[in-house]
Amino acid sequence: MTTKDASQESADKAGFQATILTLFPEMFPGTLGHSIAGRALEKGLWSCTTHQIRDYALDKHKSVDDAPLGGGHGLVMKPDVVSAALDDVSSAPGKRLYMSPRGKPLTQELARSLSDDDGVVIVCGRYEGLDQRVIDHHQLIEVSVGDYILSGGELAAQILLDSVIRLLPGVMGKEIGHLQESFETGLLEHDHYTQPRVWNKMAAPEILASGHHQKIAAWRDEQAKELTKERRPDLWERFLAKNVENNGESS
Amino acid sequence: MTTKDASQESADKAGFQATILTLFPEMFPGTLGHSIAGRALEKGLWSCTTHQIRDYALDKHKSVDDAPLGGGHGLVMKPDVVSAALDDVSSAPGKRLYMSPRGKPLTQELARSLSDDDGVVIVCGRYEGLDQRVIDHHQLIEVSVGDYILSGGELAAQILLDSVIRLLPGVMGKEIGHLQESFETGLLEHDHYTQPRVWNKMAAPEILASGHHQKIAAWRDEQAKELTKERRPDLWERFLAKNVENNGESS
Repeated sequence: MTTKDASQESADKAGFQATILTLFPEMFPGTLGHSIAGRALEKGLWSCTTHQIRDYALDKHKSVDDAPLGGGHGLVMKPDVVSAALDDVSSAPGKRLYMSPRGKPLTQELARSLSDDDGVVIVCGRYEGLDQRVIDHHQLIEVSVGDYILSGGELAAQILLDSVIRLLPGVMGKEIGHLQESFETGLLEHDHYTQPRVWNKMAAPEILASGHHQKIAAWRDEQAKELTKERRPDLWERFLAKNVENNGESS
Repeated sequence: MTTKDASQESADKAGFQATILTLFPEMFPGTLGHSIAGRALEKGLWSCTTHQIRDYALDKHKSVDDAPLGGGHGLVMKPDVVSAALDDVSSAPGKRLYMSPRGKPLTQELARSLSDDDGVVIVCGRYEGLDQRVIDHHQLIEVSVGDYILSGGELAAQILLDSVIRLLPGVMGKEIGHLQESFETGLLEHDHYTQPRVWNKMAAPEILASGHHQKIAAWRDEQAKELTKERRPDLWERFLAKNVENNGESS
């Protein structure tokens, strides 16, 4: 709820520690090495340690996968290999996640909760994914970034990390308070406009030039509600369920 | 529905052309330069052209953003600048997308439909996003990769491209037929197991060693249904609505 004091926080502990188990360590920090996440990485607000899963393979050929038991296409990542990698990072802080389209959907709430930890350990799958026994044994939390198939868990892990990193104390400064709030309403954001007031024969809505802050806030709120109702009935229903009283006021 | 013949396809046209408008062109191809997407890029199955939005700024200071009309925190990307960038890529093939948490959720169906085009143009927003008039004027299709906030549209664009690239002819070979199918059921995938049959005192389910393919398929199907019902009631309801007859058979 309250924004942490960045200086106090950094005195308390080192930065957020991301520990990544992957067959493609060269993919990290990747896109996260730039812009906001990149600057935070340089400042030590977070760190990224990768572990090559193949290094934990036990046979000569360094195999990390094998045919699925019971037949079928594709390959499954071997439980012994992935488990050895997880055992090796047992002292790394944070929850143990496995990026998977079968997982709990990533939400802003989950991102915020992860940002309160000292770090996170993420297993990135490839092929058909992990043997179920390693998920069970290590009680991995399966997390999905969306209902689509990716070529592996690495980009999904970067998405999750980006959503978490920008919530860390000191990363975005004041701006963050506003952004959190605007998502916490459970509504899609209202339309945005900037200068010029008339562009390409299209005028920005009159109300925005009125200087009447309350009316502007009410207009934006109404617009956010209409947009959510129209585009995302699922979010709208959740919003209504959570805001039974408030809702009566503004409509 | 049917998998295209890769050799015929590549004779018909050049690879899928991704055109990216961004303030961080150095982020591309980024993570997509590795593994499956990276190999496909080398083979010319897709290409990635970036345009620096700042190059289209009209003033001395090369400003790309300004304060929101009507007040409030953050900055909004200027309509004239973004519009000039879009005009400059008017001959680039494909739909015009804008990555935004307010958008239509990315699904496997949308990824497949985009992969049928000759390319895609993606605007990556930063700050509070684009002025609404440029979205309206260029009829940008807003697409969201999930209900969480990222520090910009670039990683979201990479997620979308990864989901599309692996569906392009020639990128994944035979495997793709199976993977498409397994998502098209509308269910989460069943558990996976591989060798050894007993690992860490945990045995893989007996049925998978039975050699009885029909029983294994029925077990997997049942498992996928149970998992979907438990973890994603929203997907389960959609599945039931689409499979009224089929559903009666197996339960």
